[in-house]
Amino acid sequence: MAVPGMYGDIKLISGRSCPELAQEISDRLCDTCEESVPLLPRDIYNFKNDNIYVRLGRSVRGQDVYIIQTMARPVSESIMELLITLDAVRRDSAGRITAVFPYMAYTRSDKKDEPRVAITARLIADLIETAGADRYITLDLHSPQIQGFFKIPGDVLSTFGLLTKAVRERIPLDNLTVTAVDLGFAKECRNWGRALGGAPVAFIEKKRNGESVQAMSLVGTVEGRDVLLVDDEVDTGGSIEQAVYTLREYGARNIYLAFMHPVFSAGAVERLSRLSLKHIVFANTLPITKEQRLPNMTIVSVAALLGEVIRRAHLGLSVGEMDKDLIGDFN
Amino acid sequence: MAVPGMYGDIKLISGRSCPELAQEISDRLCDTCEESVPLLPRDIYNFKNDNIYVRLGRSVRGQDVYIIQTMARPVSESIMELLITLDAVRRDSAGRITAVFPYMAYTRSDKKDEPRVAITARLIADLIETAGADRYITLDLHSPQIQGFFKIPGDVLSTFGLLTKAVRERIPLDNLTVTAVDLGFAKECRNWGRALGGAPVAFIEKKRNGESVQAMSLVGTVEGRDVLLVDDEVDTGGSIEQAVYTLREYGARNIYLAFMHPVFSAGAVERLSRLSLKHIVFANTLPITKEQRLPNMTIVSVAALLGEVIRRAHLGLSVGEMDKDLIGDFN
Amino acid sequence: MAVPGMYGDIKLISGRSCPELAQEISDRLCDTCEESVPLLPRDIYNFKNDNIYVRLGRSVRGQDVYIIQTMARPVSESIMELLITLDAVRRDSAGRITAVFPYMAYTRSDKKDEPRVAITARLIADLIETAGADRYITLDLHSPQIQGFFKIPGDVLSTFGLLTKAVRERIPLDNLTVTAVDLGFAKECRNWGRALGGAPVAFIEKKRNGESVQAMSLVGTVEGRDVLLVDDEVDTGGSIEQAVYTLREYGARNIYLAFMHPVFSAGAVERLSRLSLKHIVFANTLPITKEQRLPNMTIVSVAALLGEVIRRAHLGLSVGEMDKDLIGDFN
Amino acid sequence: MAVPGMYGDIKLISGRSCPELAQEISDRLCDTCEESVPLLPRDIYNFKNDNIYVRLGRSVRGQDVYIIQTMARPVSESIMELLITLDAVRRDSAGRITAVFPYMAYTRSDKKDEPRVAITARLIADLIETAGADRYITLDLHSPQIQGFFKIPGDVLSTFGLLTKAVRERIPLDNLTVTAVDLGFAKECRNWGRALGGAPVAFIEKKRNGESVQAMSLVGTVEGRDVLLVDDEVDTGGSIEQAVYTLREYGARNIYLAFMHPVFSAGAVERLSRLSLKHIVFANTLPITKEQRLPNMTIVSVAALLGEVIRRAHLGLSVGEMDKDLIGDFN
Amino acid sequence: MAVPGMYGDIKLISGRSCPELAQEISDRLCDTCEESVPLLPRDIYNFKNDNIYVRLGRSVRGQDVYIIQTMARPVSESIMELLITLDAVRRDSAGRITAVFPYMAYTRSDKKDEPRVAITARLIADLIETAGADRYITLDLHSPQIQGFFKIPGDVLSTFGLLTKAVRERIPLDNLTVTAVDLGFAKECRNWGRALGGAPVAFIEKKRNGESVQAMSLVGTVEGRDVLLVDDEVDTGGSIEQAVYTLREYGARNIYLAFMHPVFSAGAVERLSRLSLKHIVFANTLPITKEQRLPNMTIVSVAALLGEVIRRAHLGLSVGEMDKDLIGDFN
Amino acid sequence: MAVPGMYGDIKLISGRSCPELAQEISDRLCDTCEESVPLLPRDIYNFKNDNIYVRLGRSVRGQDVYIIQTMARPVSESIMELLITLDAVRRDSAGRITAVFPYMAYTRSDKKDEPRVAITARLIADLIETAGADRYITLDLHSPQIQGFFKIPGDVLSTFGLLTKAVRERIPLDNLTVTAVDLGFAKECRNWGRALGGAPVAFIEKKRNGESVQAMSLVGTVEGRDVLLVDDEVDTGGSIEQAVYTLREYGARNIYLAFMHPVFSAGAVERLSRLSLKHIVFANTLPITKEQRLPNMTIVSVAALLGEVIRRAHLGLSVGEMDKDLIGDFN
Repeated sequence: MAVPGMYGDIKLISGRSCPELAQEISDRLCDTCEESVPLLPRDIYNFKNDNIYVRLGRSVRGQDVYIIQTMARPVSESIMELLITLDAVRRDSAGRITAVFPYMAYTRSDKKDEPRVAITARLIADLIETAGADRYITLDLHSPQIQGFFKIPGDVLSTFGLLTKAVRERIPLDNLTVTAVDLGFAKECRNWGRALGGAPVAFIEKKRNGESVQAMSLVGTVEGRDVLLVDDEVDTGGSIEQAVYTLREYGARNIYLAFMHPVFSAGAVERLSRLSLKHIVFANTLPITKEQRLPNMTIVSVAALLGEVIRRAHLGLSVGEMDKDLIGDFN
Repeated sequence: MAVPGMYGDIKLISGRSCPELAQEISDRLCDTCEESVPLLPRDIYNFKNDNIYVRLGRSVRGQDVYIIQTMARPVSESIMELLITLDAVRRDSAGRITAVFPYMAYTRSDKKDEPRVAITARLIADLIETAGADRYITLDLHSPQIQGFFKIPGDVLSTFGLLTKAVRERIPLDNLTVTAVDLGFAKECRNWGRALGGAPVAFIEKKRNGESVQAMSLVGTVEGRDVLLVDDEVDTGGSIEQAVYTLREYGARNIYLAFMHPVFSAGAVERLSRLSLKHIVFANTLPITKEQRLPNMTIVSVAALLGEVIRRAHLGLSVGEMDKDLIGDFN
Repeated sequence: MAVPGMYGDIKLISGRSCPELAQEISDRLCDTCEESVPLLPRDIYNFKNDNIYVRLGRSVRGQDVYIIQTMARPVSESIMELLITLDAVRRDSAGRITAVFPYMAYTRSDKKDEPRVAITARLIADLIETAGADRYITLDLHSPQIQGFFKIPGDVLSTFGLLTKAVRERIPLDNLTVTAVDLGFAKECRNWGRALGGAPVAFIEKKRNGESVQAMSLVGTVEGRDVLLVDDEVDTGGSIEQAVYTLREYGARNIYLAFMHPVFSAGAVERLSRLSLKHIVFANTLPITKEQRLPNMTIVSVAALLGEVIRRAHLGLSVGEMDKDLIGDFN
Repeated sequence: MAVPGMYGDIKLISGRSCPELAQEISDRLCDTCEESVPLLPRDIYNFKNDNIYVRLGRSVRGQDVYIIQTMARPVSESIMELLITLDAVRRDSAGRITAVFPYMAYTRSDKKDEPRVAITARLIADLIETAGADRYITLDLHSPQIQGFFKIPGDVLSTFGLLTKAVRERIPLDNLTVTAVDLGFAKECRNWGRALGGAPVAFIEKKRNGESVQAMSLVGTVEGRDVLLVDDEVDTGGSIEQAVYTLREYGARNIYLAFMHPVFSAGAVERLSRLSLKHIVFANTLPITKEQRLPNMTIVSVAALLGEVIRRAHLGLSVGEMDKDLIGDFN
Repeated sequence: MAVPGMYGDIKLISGRSCPELAQEISDRLCDTCEESVPLLPRDIYNFKNDNIYVRLGRSVRGQDVYIIQTMARPVSESIMELLITLDAVRRDSAGRITAVFPYMAYTRSDKKDEPRVAITARLIADLIETAGADRYITLDLHSPQIQGFFKIPGDVLSTFGLLTKAVRERIPLDNLTVTAVDLGFAKECRNWGRALGGAPVAFIEKKRNGESVQAMSLVGTVEGRDVLLVDDEVDTGGSIEQAVYTLREYGARNIYLAFMHPVFSAGAVERLSRLSLKHIVFANTLPITKEQRLPNMTIVSVAALLGEVIRRAHLGLSVGEMDKDLIGDFN
Repeated sequence: MAVPGMYGDIKLISGRSCPELAQEISDRLCDTCEESVPLLPRDIYNFKNDNIYVRLGRSVRGQDVYIIQTMARPVSESIMELLITLDAVRRDSAGRITAVFPYMAYTRSDKKDEPRVAITARLIADLIETAGADRYITLDLHSPQIQGFFKIPGDVLSTFGLLTKAVRERIPLDNLTVTAVDLGFAKECRNWGRALGGAPVAFIEKKRNGESVQAMSLVGTVEGRDVLLVDDEVDTGGSIEQAVYTLREYGARNIYLAFMHPVFSAGAVERLSRLSLKHIVFANTLPITKEQRLPNMTIVSVAALLGEVIRRAHLGLSVGEMDKDLIGDFN
């Protein structure tokens, strides 16, 4: 049996990086908790000297606080804003503090793949702990090991269940091959295949000549098949573009795209719009402008998922035993 | 007697926020050390996804590393870049790491002057320690207590000696009154007066009516006097502007301006240029563009000061016993 | 809505430095909480070998403990006693531990104003955290930055509201000028002026010749005015004495004195008694002996203020939204 | 220029888990350093009550100590022995302490791939830091992210260069396809292909039906090809066995095997001996008994590699710039 | 008044080292709490590669968790299993975590009694804290100072009350002398004497010649007396054997034996069985096999004691005020 | 081979608690190092408000600093002075800092021998580490486990060698029995016996009736023997007095006294002077006034011992291999 509210009431605080998602989480929590869980009033702005100012509009003394701030661009500012808000909440004597960042930046800087670089993802984890977080909630880390970069406990959720459900509802599976953009995503690609009725898999392989990528080849077959390209995030869209050309070259029929995080660097959406993809499915872990929404896009909201996890974390209920439709079974 | 080089060789690394100052420090060090102390080659840039990439061009294993990165705008990025560079240097097994930030941002967020805000200056200190700094060097903190926010030892230097020397060389002292823009700078103003031949002091006082500043008044007299306005930094220039109007109203003759840090938010230089100041003296702790350099400005370089402190820190020589012309006697 | 008693019951423990104040806080808490909140029985004494012995008379396992111990002289012993009591409470598995020290010693050692000294105020903060405090409550730190020396959250309250109320009730304001003993207190002096009907301000300035103070002069005018001298604490009373002489020299009429902390080093009260002050107002953050109570003194008790803050901290209620008559608006 | 011996002399201490490798490292260091770097005398044994006793035979006060202890079975005891030795060395006031564990256990417990499990690899990293290591040296972590589990700096080396060199010398490359046992090793497999003259790749895929593995299939083609099976470690050999059967089924000709770590659980060597592999290549990061050495095995020693890294770490020389023949280019 | 369940519900988790005792504690708790407190389902086993796997069968999010794992042989594995379980529980976001180890290993490694050894007991304490324990519960530490090795609070209980009660019920006291096996246990021996009706004491003294023990002598007299030999643990039984021979030599009549922890290294029980002791009394802080149970043994269970302490710790009730029959008065 | 001066030069700083011993150490170091190792000039005094002021007269940047401050009465002040000096030295960027306290206070508060007390000795260790010590040097801790309270490495030396040497030179051994004042010192008493030609031992036993000590009895025989009473420190001398009476009652002839630390609380020396002891031998780990020196006292200086240990610690030479005449073999 759970212990209701042992850390005080839920208090939701939204940073500036994803206010719409934060509001949606608040709305969902109001539904499931059958009481109002509004966003806490707060002032956040940059002074003229570019220093960030954070002030909570209400006391959170002894409360169970969730700070919702995804690590959207400008990335450094989103991170600093999260850290400063953590400090403000901590110094206001909150009962427990959870940092909720639907997308964690720097997760590709998770290893020293060359000498004399930082492992910035570990650094970010340490900064969040230093600033005062007791727990964290995030979605689809680039590598699952990053959970081990945190000493504090946390809930690393996946959009896998939501995305595969959306795919199953929108894409015919009978002639489908799932293809990973990169060999590093091979295992996850196989999981997509399993979740989509046991679809076969194929992998794009980048051939290099010294430092530069020379050409793409394919391991497996896609001739005459519909193909679902899968990846964890779309940044510039460059790899996707090359993969689509390669797939067409190898005889693929309809091409679909699914991924977790819409990082969408400059030019990415334009690139996607030129590729004649049948359908694109991803989650709203990062904010999307109206201009970035293409007609063939389905954006799956993580608000209900995050809201439910916050509710369970607050009440001391198991997250691992949540409805599989919400959290999927990525591993 | 000092122990030369007990932490390996000096290695200077420049971030992207003040490369000219870093180069100047390197040049000065080459002079005083009689050997080459070049800036270490490094790659720093933002990926398309706005994540910062830092890579050292040479190993710093077992060396005495100084990372020169002032906290210029964009402030969050300058700070994150410093932290990531610290992590890269630490993970490359440096012998000792010193963060050199000629200007520290967030120093006005050094207290809870209202409920439910952060003490961001302490947070910054903690982040720097978490990222791996063993020591730090900075100049003219907004309040001297901020040194106590750091657990690691550091050298908090002052441009006071350099600036008062420059003032003495450029401004006639015989009819001079030193005036602080704000009562919070009253004690420092008195020190300026002492350093300038015992000049008398006066203070601008802001009168408030509820939240908003209503009018400025003056404590002391400036009638018929030349006035040197002093402050620790110029941000928007708004306080300076009001102070100059007030001084003129109270009968001041020539007005000069001296301050430590040229924060120069948008419009600040334009504002200064309109005030008919006889002379403006400040230090290069933050980078100044060509457009920001007015004809009546004297910019005092801190490169020799920082270079000498780095040399002494490296050799285990006293910094407190440095030439008073370089470090002044601010307190 | 607050969560009553989430850290167990309130337990008050008094050290030996201010038992009367602790008892008064206990009495006040019993009033406002409508139940008995007695001081916990405890044994504290020095062994023959001068080691301090602390033993709690009742278990505080899982309770919300407040240790009341001001840093009165002998200062080192008061601090050590606080630290040892913290350890005893921590090792008895308390639920949450708050160190309540109405006066914090060493707050003037809050910066390196000369080379090769300690920043003892930061050290004290670290020691308190090391010994096991989860939070702290104190009053009127010498500089507000000292709050940033603590990593743990805390409530830094002010006697400003209580003292200005007492002054308004006892001193005619119509001919009053507020004067700071020292330029370092200029800004606070201005706040006193504002709180006392917008009274004008003046400042005493110490003129130095090399190391020693030569003479005092005055910035502003007091001729024919009643003067309220203000400071944060009275130690030896030497500065007060010089200030009073200077004010008389400059033509002040009646002179009053108000300050926060009665440190009262040897000879201080005798000095105050000789100065023919009309009235002296201060708080009981440090214990006062019967011999030290002069007829012209008003001692304002902080017991109700501390009691209310403890009650609110315990219940998870906002402290920032307390009645302004209790906490004032010092900044 | 490097600073020789800034942490005192090199001291090598061998635990009980790989004394032969430790001796070989000592011999190599004597060669390259042109002076004797013997293993430090030490007593390590289990008391009757199964507690481990560690005593250093010589003082390591102020010296640069390297503790060589791979995490061989019994794994818990090897780890505890490492931790206790670290404590003994630390309490003997060593100048710098490096834990050298050629094989790190628990690297497959590097993520929460199901709810309510530990991330034991992070725990091991924390334990090593708690026990007193300043740095660490290891080889071929199961995932490169594990380097981020350590806060202390370290050198994570690879046997890739040594193994591919050995393969090139022993196996004809002209008809070779490189095959990964598991899709999780796909990227590394591709690197093997590149290092072996651009050999094509194929992947074994495990088909599951619910929890259990049903059958193996192949992505890519091996018909009529020689196949080099690659993996990071061989534990029970079960996956290898299934892979070999699958490869034979798909028409592979000669089959070779290469991997980093010979974990060799009970029955593994017997299984390998039955598979008619042409050649087996691996490193001595874990000790191999005489009985485990099959005629078709080539065991590559990491002693020269570790010795050279220790020498460079000691002298403050770059490890990243070591001879590529020794460290390879795995990423 | 206590605060029931402020850390959630009690959750008991048993490691593999003492499942019977854990079950007995669970049964006792069910009795006293008048509700079911079953052992949490969990999977713990060693992989083929000797790495330990721990998985909790139910979520412990926000609960008050007690991990019961004595440090029985294989000692390293029992400790590692405890640490890994702590990590799993911590990462599952437990509300509070208590490590319950009825017997703590390495307590004789509690000092540097020779140069260049570890203080392993302190190391164990640090490891337990690093792995995530908030508190601990243990019994009869070899030296009471070991409690100070822990920074976290804990309950160090004693079997003294249970054992002396058992002795009083089974052994005639009228002709009894209590004798310590070793001078290091002299003070505790005196306490036994006091608890057994003021029985006189005597001590065995080991005479050494250089490194080796030459002979045993006796301080005090046992001629014609019944003797109760007391010690804190029996490891090999060698000291007991020598003591019994010495006592017989000095004319002792019936000889009894009582001790806290049955470490029982190889051969210990055989040795005890040969000594013709009238009765042997000890506690079940370590598991005893059926073969080890001799007819003259009385094994006192600590389950009721530990159960009651867990209940009180959970409810925030005093442990120091427990029934003296349960906890005795050892000091 | 050792590495001379790797932490810079030796710098000795004396606190106010034992300046004579500090000077003597300095003199000895000058002898053995063949160069001057003077005490560093420093200002230490109490402000009027009883706050301690510490200022170093010279920079210790990058040097190997030893702060000599025994924990003499007033104990709290001696400890605070040590902590503040550590902070000053740390913030002056010393290379390595060693706290040298010949006598550690609070070592009898090394366990929870009753509920709800502190373990102050562990607290002291933590405070010293928090304040910035890298290492420590002390003598004859009340229990050897206290070394485990420190996480930092240290040298815990013994005066045993010096004292037994002094005893052998002054006291006839042929008819000598060594007697411990308390059973808790029984083992150490045995060691004294061994070091004095194998002298037999006896123990004083305190008989209690409830809380109060009723009477003393003796385990062993002293009839007609010379007796050397031994203890680790003399506080009030009360136990010694009772012991002497008891010994006389049991027929002892000449009585001598030896102990490590002269705590000498009020009345202790008077009590000793009345006991007609033949000779009293102890060390100068705490300062002795001229009035406290009785004609029958031999005070053994620890200056040479501490000087030699400092020299060896500085040079990275073994302390464990020092001349046994200096350090003895206490265990």
